[in-house]
Amino acid sequence: MEQPRYVFDFAEGGKEQAELLGGKGANLAEMTRLGLPVPPGFTITTQACREYLRTGTPPPELTAQVADHLTALEKKMGRELGDTANPLLVSVRSGAAASMPGMMETVLNVGLNDESVHGLAAQSGDARFAWDSYRRLVQMFGKTVLGLSGEPFDEALEAAKIRYGVTNDTELSPEAMSDLVDEFKKLSGDAFPQDPREQLKAAISAVFNSWNTERAKTYRRIERLDDNAGTAVSVVAMVFGNLGADSGTGVAFTRDPATGESGNYGDYLANAQGEDVVAGIRNTVPLTELEKLVPSAYHELRQVMSTLEQHYRDLCDIEFTVERGKLWMLQTRVGKRTAAAAFRIAAALVAEGMITQDEALCRVTGAQLAQLMFPHFDPEAVREARVLANGIAASPGAAVGQAVFDSATAVQWAKDGKAVILVRRETNPDDLDGMIAANGVLTSRGGKTSHAAVVARGMGKTCVCGADKLTVGPDQFAVGDIVVKQGDVISIDGGTGAVYAGDLPVADSDVVAYFEGKHVESQLVSAVDSLMRHADEVRRMRVRANADTEQDAARARRFGGQGIGLCRTEHMFLGERRAHLEQLILARTEQERLQALEPLRSLQRDDFVEILRAMDGLPVTIRLIDPPLHEFLPDRTELAVSLATREPSVREKALLEAVNRLHEQNPMLGLRGVRLGLVIPGLFELQAQAIAEATNELREQGHDPQPEIMVPLVGSVAELSAVRTDIASVVRSVLGADLPIGTMIELPRAALTADQIAVDADFFSFGTNDLTQTTWGFSRDDAEGAFFVEYLERGIFQVSPFESLDSAVGELVHLGTDRGRGTKPDLKVGVCGEHGGDPDSIHLFDQYGLDYVSCSPFRIPIARLEAARATLGHKKRGD
Amino acid sequence: MEQPRYVFDFAEGGKEQAELLGGKGANLAEMTRLGLPVPPGFTITTQACREYLRTGTPPPELTAQVADHLTALEKKMGRELGDTANPLLVSVRSGAAASMPGMMETVLNVGLNDESVHGLAAQSGDARFAWDSYRRLVQMFGKTVLGLSGEPFDEALEAAKIRYGVTNDTELSPEAMSDLVDEFKKLSGDAFPQDPREQLKAAISAVFNSWNTERAKTYRRIERLDDNAGTAVSVVAMVFGNLGADSGTGVAFTRDPATGESGNYGDYLANAQGEDVVAGIRNTVPLTELEKLVPSAYHELRQVMSTLEQHYRDLCDIEFTVERGKLWMLQTRVGKRTAAAAFRIAAALVAEGMITQDEALCRVTGAQLAQLMFPHFDPEAVREARVLANGIAASPGAAVGQAVFDSATAVQWAKDGKAVILVRRETNPDDLDGMIAANGVLTSRGGKTSHAAVVARGMGKTCVCGADKLTVGPDQFAVGDIVVKQGDVISIDGGTGAVYAGDLPVADSDVVAYFEGKHVESQLVSAVDSLMRHADEVRRMRVRANADTEQDAARARRFGGQGIGLCRTEHMFLGERRAHLEQLILARTEQERLQALEPLRSLQRDDFVEILRAMDGLPVTIRLIDPPLHEFLPDRTELAVSLATREPSVREKALLEAVNRLHEQNPMLGLRGVRLGLVIPGLFELQAQAIAEATNELREQGHDPQPEIMVPLVGSVAELSAVRTDIASVVRSVLGADLPIGTMIELPRAALTADQIAVDADFFSFGTNDLTQTTWGFSRDDAEGAFFVEYLERGIFQVSPFESLDSAVGELVHLGTDRGRGTKPDLKVGVCGEHGGDPDSIHLFDQYGLDYVSCSPFRIPIARLEAARATLGHKKRGD
Repeated sequence: MEQPRYVFDFAEGGKEQAELLGGKGANLAEMTRLGLPVPPGFTITTQACREYLRTGTPPPELTAQVADHLTALEKKMGRELGDTANPLLVSVRSGAAASMPGMMETVLNVGLNDESVHGLAAQSGDARFAWDSYRRLVQMFGKTVLGLSGEPFDEALEAAKIRYGVTNDTELSPEAMSDLVDEFKKLSGDAFPQDPREQLKAAISAVFNSWNTERAKTYRRIERLDDNAGTAVSVVAMVFGNLGADSGTGVAFTRDPATGESGNYGDYLANAQGEDVVAGIRNTVPLTELEKLVPSAYHELRQVMSTLEQHYRDLCDIEFTVERGKLWMLQTRVGKRTAAAAFRIAAALVAEGMITQDEALCRVTGAQLAQLMFPHFDPEAVREARVLANGIAASPGAAVGQAVFDSATAVQWAKDGKAVILVRRETNPDDLDGMIAANGVLTSRGGKTSHAAVVARGMGKTCVCGADKLTVGPDQFAVGDIVVKQGDVISIDGGTGAVYAGDLPVADSDVVAYFEGKHVESQLVSAVDSLMRHADEVRRMRVRANADTEQDAARARRFGGQGIGLCRTEHMFLGERRAHLEQLILARTEQERLQALEPLRSLQRDDFVEILRAMDGLPVTIRLIDPPLHEFLPDRTELAVSLATREPSVREKALLEAVNRLHEQNPMLGLRGVRLGLVIPGLFELQAQAIAEATNELREQGHDPQPEIMVPLVGSVAELSAVRTDIASVVRSVLGADLPIGTMIELPRAALTADQIAVDADFFSFGTNDLTQTTWGFSRDDAEGAFFVEYLERGIFQVSPFESLDSAVGELVHLGTDRGRGTKPDLKVGVCGEHGGDPDSIHLFDQYGLDYVSCSPFRIPIARLEAARATLGHKKRGD
Repeated sequence: MEQPRYVFDFAEGGKEQAELLGGKGANLAEMTRLGLPVPPGFTITTQACREYLRTGTPPPELTAQVADHLTALEKKMGRELGDTANPLLVSVRSGAAASMPGMMETVLNVGLNDESVHGLAAQSGDARFAWDSYRRLVQMFGKTVLGLSGEPFDEALEAAKIRYGVTNDTELSPEAMSDLVDEFKKLSGDAFPQDPREQLKAAISAVFNSWNTERAKTYRRIERLDDNAGTAVSVVAMVFGNLGADSGTGVAFTRDPATGESGNYGDYLANAQGEDVVAGIRNTVPLTELEKLVPSAYHELRQVMSTLEQHYRDLCDIEFTVERGKLWMLQTRVGKRTAAAAFRIAAALVAEGMITQDEALCRVTGAQLAQLMFPHFDPEAVREARVLANGIAASPGAAVGQAVFDSATAVQWAKDGKAVILVRRETNPDDLDGMIAANGVLTSRGGKTSHAAVVARGMGKTCVCGADKLTVGPDQFAVGDIVVKQGDVISIDGGTGAVYAGDLPVADSDVVAYFEGKHVESQLVSAVDSLMRHADEVRRMRVRANADTEQDAARARRFGGQGIGLCRTEHMFLGERRAHLEQLILARTEQERLQALEPLRSLQRDDFVEILRAMDGLPVTIRLIDPPLHEFLPDRTELAVSLATREPSVREKALLEAVNRLHEQNPMLGLRGVRLGLVIPGLFELQAQAIAEATNELREQGHDPQPEIMVPLVGSVAELSAVRTDIASVVRSVLGADLPIGTMIELPRAALTADQIAVDADFFSFGTNDLTQTTWGFSRDDAEGAFFVEYLERGIFQVSPFESLDSAVGELVHLGTDRGRGTKPDLKVGVCGEHGGDPDSIHLFDQYGLDYVSCSPFRIPIARLEAARATLGHKKRGD
């Protein structure tokens, strides 16, 4: 059997090997392959790490392979590890496939010992530098490899500075540094190995071990990264940015990662190593200053950045070091960016001919577009604002209000017309009313899956959680010395997690204004516009809106909606019209029933005229009344309590009797949807008649209304057939022609028997909200507060199945579609649950072959974009 | 293309052709084939009828084929239709594939006209008989073919009798009869055709048309017969039982259809036709009298009956006529019988070597066995009792009580300790409480699918419905002159539909006594015993019980249960223990929680010891607590109302707060099952510990307890894995070994992801009650009263999906089983929903390959029998 290969030279790998070599190792190899100035080195694979973590010891082949590569490296550099005259020094760096910034360990200057430190001094001509480097190695080794506390080392350094009367460690003499090395070695219990190969081996194991520190594990849990992936380890010949004025270190971006603006961005720190930048000892200068300091290195860097961006065809972020005028590349990767930058960069790269329009669509996401559509705090104001803390961005939006610390107060103050932010250590189901009343929710504990986060997202309410710097009390919170009392105004940014003191002005989104059809002069809007235009050309699925009113329909149309996929009609029975429905429910004779129905019909007709006119020429799927009738009556407990203390009127008695009669143990599983239509004569016919009359009226006015009648909660074709007969005959009697009649598929049984149901359905629309509820056997209302938090924490869900389509629910959608089309190959199939606006779910719906998704008007642009991305994704996979 | 063949001679067909020739036609052909004395004739197929009903006219080929067969019949008989000297007369009889007694028409004496009547007179030597036969034909033709009212004919006959001063129509002279014929012809508007072939054609069409009379359609709807099957028509040479003392007609059974007793049973009426027996003009005599009257015919009949029983290998029922000493067989079929007779006959036929034991199992059903297990009215008392009416046997049992006419009174009287029968015109959801309070329910309207019937069956309550002779008022009902007032005692038999005045003594079932292990001397019990023994040898599936108490477990074992498939533990939290659970729910600290849990553990352990001891050596599947916690707290509305009028105590306040906090919109879809186990620390562990301790205790006593721990309401393997880890560790710490841990499959998602769930499940048990609820999206509580009646009436269901497994739910059971076994080929799979005791469902479960069904103890024998029948059925089909 061939030996497993655990080590790759930088000259051997490439960027596509991130899983094996880690992101850092793969990109170092890529730059080496491009002929860029990368210090030589090699990478130990993630597989070696996994073996190590599994067995607790380095795999036997690893030691030999490292030795071979080290020898090759020594030959290449013309230096040897531990050499007294001309020593090779290496850094040992972590680097997993997925970026985990700052989570794992690095050991620098490996190769220094009591002998080679003199070689380094001679080599560099700088004894202080050599002893300082040695001091740093011993210190880092003690902390990282030996697992010692850092404090004694820091204290010893401080004591030396006092002893020698200097303020800066660069002022310490080589002798003083040499003494410090001795002291540090003692602090390490004389465990620091003089053998550089021992050092290297120990450093590699230490990096492996750093995969499993608590903070690394926590980070992976929060970011949902694979806990078993392991890290790669890159061993790189050391280069030094701290060898004088013509040395230094910096980071650079090929474009502005905040705005997406073209040009070179970055920071530079002369005469320093990367760790000094992190430590913030001195202030960095803008990258352009490098031109003055080391012009040749600057010009080479510009060249390198251009090469990298051309090669990666994307924004690159770069770490580099200048050693005595010579540029060395230490790292590059495709850079993170804000949502706005993502759109601008993608559009710019298309304009520059670097990527195709299709590729551009793959560089942006619906989630990013959603971010751009939320109101945000005015950037000027943010710059001035006092940041109290940074928590976890749990539910987007910008919310301003008076801090309140309990649910009851939140409810009371909101009733009084005040804007409030509910601040709690953490929330629980008792806080629900307060959350509803508040503009935003802020907690000091819990992550993205905490009760506050889950419930707020469910409500679409701004939420920052886990702001652990806050000490939350019963009527105030403190951050250090600052105390925010009940009633003080704060502002929270659910998109960034920032918590500000005071009232920050909120600005509406330019992108929304653009979708609303307003003219906006902005590079971002131009970028969004060009990407959305292409998305609309590319996508296979159509996008419709869930809209119940003329206003929503009009907005949906402006936002690019190609019709209405779900027009609920129950809202049309609320307000003043509730009285008619109440009369219908209380009716005991056929005549009373008809008297109640008649006024509803003409009111409904007027509603339909408005909506159909707003969507003229586009399909409007109207769902017949769905909820149980008692939703239109007073609450049972409240009514019973209010009548317990006095003699009720005749009407109240009848009402209480009706409420009791219609009371259901589980209304969601009761008399609703098609069942209502079958049990209450005339109800569906009333609605069908109103739809047909509205259609007639608009046609007479020269319009082109396209209503589709949708029957809810069908479980069996027999239900649909029965109501279809009645509805179709009403429609035909009004219009002299048919209208499409279809059904929701929102029960497992409907999906399973879709082949039969398709016989009597002109179209299907998957109601994935109810389908999720029945497939899982939990109701959203009852489950989200009661146990979803526990489920998310325990990893039973990765994400709420109401946010993103569950796999088993997906199987039913897929199977229902296939079975329906088995009966009617041309059956039009859509989805109108909230998943219709969720990016991941949209990709699944595209895969299942659905014709359209329908979502809230505000999410239409997101759905348009993701539908296009889905089309491209499936093209790529060859579907 | 070959001509369709619409007519078959009796010599051509056989009993296996009932679908084509109808039951009557097929059996006449079979008897002809056996060489028995059947009058010659031919049968027109059901296909011809379907064609006729489809087009409204006889298919063109039919006329020619009938003419050909008629010619052949004339040749065979040596007589011709309409012949003036020696006329052939035929009867035209209906006969569908499924028996529809008395629902369709028959025309006798076809072939008589003004000429041939003289021929018949000469032929028979009885002019009165000939004219009477003619009179009957004209009358029957008028009513059946011409669709005239029968009354004018009856009045004319009465008038003639008065005119001639006679009391009996047999006393009318030939001349008087001849006059009557003329009068009848006039009453028929001179539309009676003289051409016998015209008569025949019209009679055939009339029989076809009688398929679609209202009463026939109603009958088919009630009996769930195919509405499109059509009837066959048999044209048979007439024989006459009314030609003198050596003529007559009768019915016979080869065994007693009421008891199953061996021997010949039947009734005979001398000098009469079949219609006279129906009309009840004279009293019949026992069949054995025929031996004295016409010995040769009697002995031939005995011979024929023996031949038929040997041939059909079953109880046959027979219609015959003796014409001047000559026996003619007019009909035979495998006879209907009571449940008791079915068992006795099956066992007797085995004993007589006529059928195998396997065949015997196919001759009885679980439904029949169920009938034998209900208490019944004492047969002696029934014979003496006054039958008030016969309604529809809607829900079996024998109930006695005082008649009450509204729900409130029923509730009140039941509270006062009275036994009541709720009598209503029909019931609606408002009657629910009254139905619960009553011993039985009686209605005057509605069929097997009416509200009363559906709800009563759901409750297992005796119900007779649709007793349409009753006139039900607000506080009494009347049947003719008899008035039953509120408070009068009545008795109703839900197995027969009979309503009796007064208090009938109820006798317990011998069969139940036998299953209880008591010694019962009875032929029936011997028969049941031998069939059940064979069933137990034959069946593949095991049968377990749903039992929560020691008593139920013991009974289940006596009834042949092979373990417990579902031991619910929530009942163990009721009664006095409710206080502990309340304390657990109200606990706000860890310590309070533990204090509440501790006493529950030891109480539960004692429960488990009892049940496991009762089922020693057999598996007992214990389901961890399933229902939402608020079920253990007071009703929210009641509590709120009771506290609205006074100052609540601290405990009451806490209770109200907990009730409000735990209140769920849809408890069935809320915090229950495995979700409780995940959210409430220690709850499942408490139960697991109690189970393990009970096991330990019994093992130490030398017993062999076989507990299996079942986790309810799992939707995802992650839920099961999480609780499994905790439970398994508790069990291991007590027992030092594992116990089987499995799960209910009762959510669509569990079935769909059964491949994943099987990884962590030692067994599956399908909870088909909940699976039906979530697959259909309706709860039994809410749906049965609210819309099931409508659904059954409209044919959306053929039967409630809670009674018999729905096809789509079945698909999930099948798929879940297959997916689970795909992961673990040996996975033990059972079912513990109520469908486990339903015959049709048991056959499906056998087909899906389940290992066992579990049902209520009382239904265990039924399940044992049906499981065996299922095994035989699948063997037969070659599965």
